[in-house]
Amino acid sequence: MIKAGIIGATGYAGSQLMRLLSNHPNVEIKTITARSYIGKAYPEVYENFREITPLVCEEENVEKMAEECDVIFMALPHGLASKLVSESVLSKCKVIDFGADFRLKDLDIYNKWYGVEHFGAEFIDEAVYGLCELNREKIKKARLIANPGCYTTCSILALSPLVKFGLIEEDSIIVDAKSGVSGAGRGVELTNLFCEVNENMKAYKIAAHRHTPEIEEQISYFGKSNIIINFTPHLTPMNRGILATSYAKLVKGVTEDDVRKAYMSFYENEYFVRLTKAGTFPETKWVKGSNFTDIGFKIDERTGRIIVISALDNLIKGAAGQAVQNMNILFGIDEKTGLTTVPDFPV
Amino acid sequence: MIKAGIIGATGYAGSQLMRLLSNHPNVEIKTITARSYIGKAYPEVYENFREITPLVCEEENVEKMAEECDVIFMALPHGLASKLVSESVLSKCKVIDFGADFRLKDLDIYNKWYGVEHFGAEFIDEAVYGLCELNREKIKKARLIANPGCYTTCSILALSPLVKFGLIEEDSIIVDAKSGVSGAGRGVELTNLFCEVNENMKAYKIAAHRHTPEIEEQISYFGKSNIIINFTPHLTPMNRGILATSYAKLVKGVTEDDVRKAYMSFYENEYFVRLTKAGTFPETKWVKGSNFTDIGFKIDERTGRIIVISALDNLIKGAAGQAVQNMNILFGIDEKTGLTTVPDFPV
Amino acid sequence: MIKAGIIGATGYAGSQLMRLLSNHPNVEIKTITARSYIGKAYPEVYENFREITPLVCEEENVEKMAEECDVIFMALPHGLASKLVSESVLSKCKVIDFGADFRLKDLDIYNKWYGVEHFGAEFIDEAVYGLCELNREKIKKARLIANPGCYTTCSILALSPLVKFGLIEEDSIIVDAKSGVSGAGRGVELTNLFCEVNENMKAYKIAAHRHTPEIEEQISYFGKSNIIINFTPHLTPMNRGILATSYAKLVKGVTEDDVRKAYMSFYENEYFVRLTKAGTFPETKWVKGSNFTDIGFKIDERTGRIIVISALDNLIKGAAGQAVQNMNILFGIDEKTGLTTVPDFPV
Amino acid sequence: MIKAGIIGATGYAGSQLMRLLSNHPNVEIKTITARSYIGKAYPEVYENFREITPLVCEEENVEKMAEECDVIFMALPHGLASKLVSESVLSKCKVIDFGADFRLKDLDIYNKWYGVEHFGAEFIDEAVYGLCELNREKIKKARLIANPGCYTTCSILALSPLVKFGLIEEDSIIVDAKSGVSGAGRGVELTNLFCEVNENMKAYKIAAHRHTPEIEEQISYFGKSNIIINFTPHLTPMNRGILATSYAKLVKGVTEDDVRKAYMSFYENEYFVRLTKAGTFPETKWVKGSNFTDIGFKIDERTGRIIVISALDNLIKGAAGQAVQNMNILFGIDEKTGLTTVPDFPV
Repeated sequence: MIKAGIIGATGYAGSQLMRLLSNHPNVEIKTITARSYIGKAYPEVYENFREITPLVCEEENVEKMAEECDVIFMALPHGLASKLVSESVLSKCKVIDFGADFRLKDLDIYNKWYGVEHFGAEFIDEAVYGLCELNREKIKKARLIANPGCYTTCSILALSPLVKFGLIEEDSIIVDAKSGVSGAGRGVELTNLFCEVNENMKAYKIAAHRHTPEIEEQISYFGKSNIIINFTPHLTPMNRGILATSYAKLVKGVTEDDVRKAYMSFYENEYFVRLTKAGTFPETKWVKGSNFTDIGFKIDERTGRIIVISALDNLIKGAAGQAVQNMNILFGIDEKTGLTTVPDFPV
Repeated sequence: MIKAGIIGATGYAGSQLMRLLSNHPNVEIKTITARSYIGKAYPEVYENFREITPLVCEEENVEKMAEECDVIFMALPHGLASKLVSESVLSKCKVIDFGADFRLKDLDIYNKWYGVEHFGAEFIDEAVYGLCELNREKIKKARLIANPGCYTTCSILALSPLVKFGLIEEDSIIVDAKSGVSGAGRGVELTNLFCEVNENMKAYKIAAHRHTPEIEEQISYFGKSNIIINFTPHLTPMNRGILATSYAKLVKGVTEDDVRKAYMSFYENEYFVRLTKAGTFPETKWVKGSNFTDIGFKIDERTGRIIVISALDNLIKGAAGQAVQNMNILFGIDEKTGLTTVPDFPV
Repeated sequence: MIKAGIIGATGYAGSQLMRLLSNHPNVEIKTITARSYIGKAYPEVYENFREITPLVCEEENVEKMAEECDVIFMALPHGLASKLVSESVLSKCKVIDFGADFRLKDLDIYNKWYGVEHFGAEFIDEAVYGLCELNREKIKKARLIANPGCYTTCSILALSPLVKFGLIEEDSIIVDAKSGVSGAGRGVELTNLFCEVNENMKAYKIAAHRHTPEIEEQISYFGKSNIIINFTPHLTPMNRGILATSYAKLVKGVTEDDVRKAYMSFYENEYFVRLTKAGTFPETKWVKGSNFTDIGFKIDERTGRIIVISALDNLIKGAAGQAVQNMNILFGIDEKTGLTTVPDFPV
Repeated sequence: MIKAGIIGATGYAGSQLMRLLSNHPNVEIKTITARSYIGKAYPEVYENFREITPLVCEEENVEKMAEECDVIFMALPHGLASKLVSESVLSKCKVIDFGADFRLKDLDIYNKWYGVEHFGAEFIDEAVYGLCELNREKIKKARLIANPGCYTTCSILALSPLVKFGLIEEDSIIVDAKSGVSGAGRGVELTNLFCEVNENMKAYKIAAHRHTPEIEEQISYFGKSNIIINFTPHLTPMNRGILATSYAKLVKGVTEDDVRKAYMSFYENEYFVRLTKAGTFPETKWVKGSNFTDIGFKIDERTGRIIVISALDNLIKGAAGQAVQNMNILFGIDEKTGLTTVPDFPV
């Protein structure tokens, strides 16, 4: 049994991780922590766990946790994980960080977009970006995994094949993304109130969202340039799911067939990426509750652009599910273990 | 492996059964049928099953299905299953019927509330009402299971202990129930359109809903009289879940302690029934995606009434989950098999 | 022009009042206050008012407001208005209080249910309960109006005719009410977050909601006893609207015709109460955005109970609309002025 | 009083028109028709009109209506209005058509995108495209108004100033639009069911939506080329509202100040267009229930693109409200008459 610890178990992502690990046949959850709920039984914070877990939220003690656990999941706001990661911790157990601290390789870019000091800069190089479909081999040998963001996973999986095979103009990429509200976390703020969000559609952090440089870095590895994109997130009145609509100018002469072949070869053996047939497009409801990312595309002959639609569940493939997938890879067990639930509809 | 067939696999309940059985370790789905989608691959009807199942909707042939399967699930509108059940079928395999045809023991009451002829009246006596927590021993030996309705399961589990232990006046029961929209099925009707349902609350079939006599019959088995209740269903703008608020006059002298002991003894060993602590009450979100029924109560000293709140997922414990639970009992495997997913929140 | 002041203009009820008064042909809004937004232009708090109003939220100064205004609306949490009302204020202008401070005539009951000291007890007797359909004549001459609660308006209008005409057993009343989330106000609390409320149904404050004694007092005026009821509020995942499902035992011999005549005579000349035809029942969507209360009923011969369904918009007839209606009565203008918008559907 | 007739009064747009005209001080609704509800009282189709209107849905008789009315509104699917418009009708009364039949000046483009024959081609030239802010002077003298589509109004108002003042590259425009479900009408189809739409986000008619050529034609009038755009509509789980996120490459050297000045001069005297301040962006909730279009923009220096956000209520400014605005212009009354309701929030 893999012994797991969770730091920050009471956010929506942490809670989803609790759910997935509770049903994972190879995992025993040893310790959970949550600064705001120390001493509280987990089912008092999340009543869906009533009579399911005896775990109590403890105070954070990363060294002790590293002694007792094989893997520590950190589901914390950015800037906090970088203080907890140390050589001592990494020498004893694997760390999978849900936050942004170890996702960007360029510290300047981190500082610019996040505006906080980085306390674990010495581990940035070592950290492996945990987008499993792209970095599986590196993940296997990693000690520290930077679990990707939700918008980023959805965007990178949609765009990487196009960039890799040189099918699009690299300076023409626009990602217009729509997210459910759980992506904003459980923070008690006016803008997250039911009546403020329900029956409303809005864009936010236009040209300023922190997932932008993360997408840019990852797709640039496949490209010829330092790719700069437009990324616009939108808040949609639903609990879960991300739909990304990506636009790019096709390189002259590229055909629908070229594009389909690119996607098929790129994701040939990937269980968690599903390509839709021509004329069918992903919707968030078809992936909800699962670790799948669905991808479909359309070429507009009139404008010479491709429109790619991708969809995932922000709390699963966009957070806790991908973390479990990373854990499975790290510990050499079947990557799908604990992640094979059929998407739930209508839910 | 238990070989299963599903007749009516493309309704919401049928689809949820597909989901549960797809992840059930002891089941192989052999055949599925759906009159409106003959020849269609299941993932074309429900795209969440994309790349998950190769099954194609077939034409209905219950005799052939009985030959090939160990259990047939019938997820059909009332009046149809009674035509499909026969001695020949029952002699070859178990039948679990989602509809109302075999739930009521009194044919007159069936005729009065459903207004259709019953074509399988000779099997009514034999059929076992599949509310697992009440009829487990009978279910074990049954050939034909009448899987209970969603409102009824939620109401009967809330009321039975009170009636059995004589804690309430039997003529004082009122059940005010609130359901998500998936309970109305996938029928394409004006009243089910998004804009007609969303941001609206309404009661329907007041004093006339067909689940009424089903509740009455089952709780009467525990009582001293033929219990007659008021039952009012409401349509709530959400996909899933039922919340039932039940009211009854307490018998003079009954204390909170009496009530709690009654519930605890009644559900002592029941995994799928969770009692909430005093002061905490069930909400549909805490059971969604699971087979649990949560029950809590409050005594109002001012009026001498008890208010019982019960919650379940109408498609799981109210339909497909209970059907799987019944199947597990029928085949002698652990009753929880395939049903241990932690409720999913926020979803 | 009636000069109006609003204390507490930035809650949902206050904002709805701003809307209604902005379109009222006889009103000029002179001053608005809001403790948390002093100095802020109203459209910065509510962007729907962009370019519509130049008003800025001021600090509270009730004496100054009384000098400048003909009517002051107080949209404050309970316990605050009682500190602001004084002989000096009432001698200069009318006061319409949205809160509970002057609704209950019995101070002991106020203390018991609200648990706060009352600082304006000397005005309790004078205050008129502003349910316009019941107290129109008293309202005309009042200085201080206690604008009723949302649940209470919906319940009292449904029950009063039955009690007045002696059609029901007075000790048999149960009100099961369902409210949209705006009823909880704009308070920034975990329980009001989108993901906590959306796709969920729950009961709250069971046998303990403060609107209970308010309903009891008002319907008791029509009855033979001190009526005690069960009242259970529920939170429904929608922005606006209340649906109340009321149950009572009919007095022996009472017929459907008796009941219909009672409602028709009681509401004969009432524009804002609409009775539905037999077999048709109110839904919140049909009254949204309007000052109407719709009422319909069904008699269940099996149990001898009547079920009454009533619906209103909690922010209009349940708060700001009724306040405007009260103001219209107070100032002798047509009661419907500013309140004739057709209910908006689908919205 | 302007005597009005409505053909197709029972769709969502027709119903909203009924609402607006019912509260319009200068209008008397003479006749309404609806093929599916002939002989039915309007409040039986839309219960929000209970006790508000005595009108009954009649059979369509356009000649008779033209005799009796000053203006006929046609709220019909495309292809139907072109059969009803005739010289005889236009010589007697004004016609405002909600459909697409007279919006496109190029019949080939109509045929290509709509795939139906046009039966009133002789009136295409005469028809005035009723986007009031662009064509006010022509509208004044028109007999036949082609009321614009909802997506188109939202997109054209956002883009026109940029094109007119030459601020963007004309071949770089992408409009990513998100609509509430009422835009799909009241058609009883599987894809419009609550459970299919709720908690889901999807794109549809990608690179194929019929509003595309309409946007292109109108903004091309301001440009130097035949502008071709990408337009992608999305279905959002809410009743009302459209949010359009438009992207374009800025012409080299264009500054934020240039852009703001362009918008301000273009919409200087337009009551129904509201520009948001820098850093603030439109949301659908702030325009709901009103005839406003809100517009805001952001320049991304990194990519050289402008992102424009525009929002309107699809049933008001996107349909019935704009129709009333057109009527007001046609009859020489204040353009705002009947359209000054403050947007309703939270609703």
